[in-house]
Amino acid sequence: MNTADLVYFIDLLGTLVFAISGWTAASKKQMDPFGASVLAFITAVGGGTLRDVLIGSTPVGWMQDLNYLLMIGIGIALGLLFRKFFEKLRRTMFLFDSIGIGLFTILGIEKTLEYGLSPVIAVLMGTVSAVFGGVVRDTLANEIPLIFRQEIYATACLTGGILFLILTYFNLNTDVKIIVTVCYIIALRIIAVKNKWSLPTIK
Amino acid sequence: MNTADLVYFIDLLGTLVFAISGWTAASKKQMDPFGASVLAFITAVGGGTLRDVLIGSTPVGWMQDLNYLLMIGIGIALGLLFRKFFEKLRRTMFLFDSIGIGLFTILGIEKTLEYGLSPVIAVLMGTVSAVFGGVVRDTLANEIPLIFRQEIYATACLTGGILFLILTYFNLNTDVKIIVTVCYIIALRIIAVKNKWSLPTIK
Amino acid sequence: MNTADLVYFIDLLGTLVFAISGWTAASKKQMDPFGASVLAFITAVGGGTLRDVLIGSTPVGWMQDLNYLLMIGIGIALGLLFRKFFEKLRRTMFLFDSIGIGLFTILGIEKTLEYGLSPVIAVLMGTVSAVFGGVVRDTLANEIPLIFRQEIYATACLTGGILFLILTYFNLNTDVKIIVTVCYIIALRIIAVKNKWSLPTIK
Repeated sequence: MNTADLVYFIDLLGTLVFAISGWTAASKKQMDPFGASVLAFITAVGGGTLRDVLIGSTPVGWMQDLNYLLMIGIGIALGLLFRKFFEKLRRTMFLFDSIGIGLFTILGIEKTLEYGLSPVIAVLMGTVSAVFGGVVRDTLANEIPLIFRQEIYATACLTGGILFLILTYFNLNTDVKIIVTVCYIIALRIIAVKNKWSLPTIK
Repeated sequence: MNTADLVYFIDLLGTLVFAISGWTAASKKQMDPFGASVLAFITAVGGGTLRDVLIGSTPVGWMQDLNYLLMIGIGIALGLLFRKFFEKLRRTMFLFDSIGIGLFTILGIEKTLEYGLSPVIAVLMGTVSAVFGGVVRDTLANEIPLIFRQEIYATACLTGGILFLILTYFNLNTDVKIIVTVCYIIALRIIAVKNKWSLPTIK
Repeated sequence: MNTADLVYFIDLLGTLVFAISGWTAASKKQMDPFGASVLAFITAVGGGTLRDVLIGSTPVGWMQDLNYLLMIGIGIALGLLFRKFFEKLRRTMFLFDSIGIGLFTILGIEKTLEYGLSPVIAVLMGTVSAVFGGVVRDTLANEIPLIFRQEIYATACLTGGILFLILTYFNLNTDVKIIVTVCYIIALRIIAVKNKWSLPTIK
C-alpha cells in the first residue's frame, strides 16, 4: 500500500469512527434519528471541512468522493444496530475516539503541507481537523465543548503532530510514523484520564 | 422569462422572505433594531453563504450583487412597518418560510450541479442552503434550532430536492419543476404540522 | 512608511490587542491556560478569517505569515504576566478594544476593496473583521454576544467605515484617514458608554 492509498484509507476510517462517536453522543441525548444523523455527519466531516475551507481546498474533500458519505452511512447504521454495545463499551469508544483524533491530526498535517504552508500551521490545522468536529458536536448538543473541559484532548493532537513532524524529519517509514503517533496520542489520553491530569485555572 | 432569470428572481424572492422571517423572530425576542437587522441578514444569506464557501464559489454570491442587500433592506423595512401584521399572521409566516426553504433548496441544487458535483451532494447542499440560515438564527436567538425540534423541516428539503432531481431526469419544464417542488415542500410541512408528525427518539 | 507597510503594521498591532483582550476575558471566567489561549487566538484572528473565507482569500491571511501567530503568543504572554494589571485597568482595556476594532475595520475595508468588491460590501466586511472575533469569544464564553447587547459596538464600525470611505473620496493622506477614523470610533464608544446610549427594543 503506497502513501496516498494509506492516507485515503486513514481518512475513511477516521470518518467512520467519528460518525459512530457522533451518533452515540446523540442517542445519549435522546435525539431523534434525523438530529442524530446530522450530529454524526458534522462530527465526522466538521474538522476536515473547516481545514479545507481555511486552506482554500474547495469544493471541500467529502464532496468530491461519495465514499465519505458512505462511511458516515455505515457509521450511522452501526450506531443504530449496536447502540447498546457502543454505549456499554465506554472504554472502546474512548479508544475509537482517540484513534480518530490521531488519524485526523496526521491527515490534516499532510494536507496542509501539500498546500505549501509552514509546519507550524500544519500542526495547528492537524489539531483543528481532529478536534473541531467534536467541538461542534458538543456545542450543538448543548454541552461545554470537551476541548474546554479537558485541554488534554487538544494538547494530545498538538504534541502528537509535533512528534509526527520530528519523525518525518528523521525520514521514518510512513506506516511507522503513523502507528507511533497514534499510539502516542492514545497513550497520552489514557495516562491523562487515569491520573486526572488537568492544567490549573488562571488566577 | 428564461431559466437564468427565473433562478435569479427565485434567489431574490427567497432572500426577501427569509429577511422578514429573521426580523419577525428577532422582534418576538424584544431585540433592538440593530440585532434584529443582523438576524434578518444572517437568516437571509446564511445558508447560501455556507453553500458558496463549501463549494468554493467565492466571493460569496450576495457580495457580487447589491440587489441581495437591497432585498434584505426591503425585508427589514416591511418587518418594521408591518410587524404586528406578520406576527398575527402566523400561518402566513409559516407559508412564507415554507416557500423560502423550497426556493432555496432548488437554487442550492442548481448551483452545486453547476460546479460539477454529484446529485447526492447537490441535494445535501440544497438542504444546507435552505435550513442553515434558520439554524444560525435560532442558535443566536438562544433557541434549540428548529432543525433539531422538527426534523420534518429538513426532511422536506431533502425529499423535495430528490423530487426536483427526478423531475429533472424526466426533462420537465423548469417552471413546472419549481412549482411542483415548492408545493410538495409546503404540503409536506402543513400535513406534518397538522398531524404532529415526528420521528421517535432513539432508545 | 508606505501604505502597504502601514496596513501590515496595523494588522499585527490589532492582532496583539485582540489576543490580550481574549486572554483577559478568559481569565475572568477562570478558564485553564489552554482554553484561554484558544480564546485569545479566536478573538485575534476570527474576524479576519471569516472575511478572508467570504471574499475567497485563502489560505487565510494568518496562515501565510507566522508573525500573526507570534503576535498572539506575545499577547498571551503579556496577558499571563500582567493579568491583574489588565483587569484593573478596565478603561485601558476598553481603549485597547476600541483601537483594535478601529484598526480591523479599516484593514477589512482595504482588503475587500482590493478584491474588486463594492464599497458597501467593504464597509460590511470591515465591520465583520472587527466584531466577529469578539462575537465568537463571547459565544464560547457563554455570554450573550456584546454585539447584541450594545449595538453601538458594531454601529461604531459601520459609521467609522463610511467615514473612512468619505475621507478616501477626498483623497486624504492614508495616515490621517486612519488616525481620524480610529479616533472617531473610540470617541463614539466613550460617548455612548458615558451617556448609556442604546437603541430602543422593537415594540
